[in-house]
Amino acid sequence: MSVEIVLATHNQHKVEEFQRLVSRDVPGITVLAYDGPEPVEDGTTFSENALIKARVAAAHTGSIALADDSGIGVEILGGSPGIFSARWAGSQHDSTANLALLLDQLQDVHEEHRAAWFACHLALVVPPGIDGTEPFEHVAVGTWRGALATEPSGTNGFGYDPAFIPDGERRTAAELSPAEKNELSHRALAFRALVPVLQRLVPEGPASTAS
Amino acid sequence: MSVEIVLATHNQHKVEEFQRLVSRDVPGITVLAYDGPEPVEDGTTFSENALIKARVAAAHTGSIALADDSGIGVEILGGSPGIFSARWAGSQHDSTANLALLLDQLQDVHEEHRAAWFACHLALVVPPGIDGTEPFEHVAVGTWRGALATEPSGTNGFGYDPAFIPDGERRTAAELSPAEKNELSHRALAFRALVPVLQRLVPEGPASTAS
Repeated sequence: MSVEIVLATHNQHKVEEFQRLVSRDVPGITVLAYDGPEPVEDGTTFSENALIKARVAAAHTGSIALADDSGIGVEILGGSPGIFSARWAGSQHDSTANLALLLDQLQDVHEEHRAAWFACHLALVVPPGIDGTEPFEHVAVGTWRGALATEPSGTNGFGYDPAFIPDGERRTAAELSPAEKNELSHRALAFRALVPVLQRLVPEGPASTAS
Repeated sequence: MSVEIVLATHNQHKVEEFQRLVSRDVPGITVLAYDGPEPVEDGTTFSENALIKARVAAAHTGSIALADDSGIGVEILGGSPGIFSARWAGSQHDSTANLALLLDQLQDVHEEHRAAWFACHLALVVPPGIDGTEPFEHVAVGTWRGALATEPSGTNGFGYDPAFIPDGERRTAAELSPAEKNELSHRALAFRALVPVLQRLVPEGPASTAS
């Protein structure tokens, strides 16, 4: 028997990234895309916004819900774009415009002052009525440190990936293979921190009793 | 005899604001507009950028130079736009676009999380060879606290003024009279902190010996 978790995002890239991670690390769980109502994300932190989204999805579906809030922080911008990463160039723009604006804003900033990081906050909301567990909420956090490039480069990944050079790398996150990114990324790190919590939701099945 | 200070800005609004303040508070000083080369402002703080501009103007003219670096900081953006205030919407845009973008980015942010401030850092550079004083540098700072409105309002002022509601006010900075702004603004506060330093540059003249 598989435990179903709805993933409270309409971003198909994120759904696919999570499905890969979950099937690898927590085989008793099935990730379903959520297409119910989307709340206004009016929290002031990634954690608040992730919880807002997961609570709405859990309430709407009655299922366990997982929501991601993530973005890029730039040191010389005091941690911005942060929770505003998805609308950095304004509510009418897309991720290409967001990235172009960020690089334009920082055009005169020298290499040694371009420190940046990707942050991912993963909120898990277990509503009342789920077999075998009390209701609870948990937020797991992952941070991927690096620096902003001056020009975008690479075609893998999405969002700010083409401009983010992880520490220890010369390539941007969009030049890493999906397999490399699945090891290193903020989303992978947050997911790794969440794995023990997810495993407690899976009833003892053949896979785990056999070990 | 009047002491001449070049004001290292090409912003005519700022030249006028300073001329008003100087003629009121330090009558022995004449403010001249500077139209020499403009350096790249690649500092990481307002103070660094103000000093970069004042040093270039002093070196180019041989005169005492004053430069302003100022901008708006927003708490939920970690102090951004900050030194990027003038190019917030990108290097090809103007102050109307900067303001519109900032309000669009913060569209979902509630009133209680819209704290903001204007900061002004005024750098004075006295180069070698000025009569009656050793060379020196000084930076004076002024901060004007308030909150971001949700819509621009008012036609006085410039830049982000139409969206900035000073603490204790219901009007935006662009709805204050020039006289009110000259009392309250970040630029006025920084200038006030600089007045004693400027007065030391003025030789004793009829105005001061009469008192």
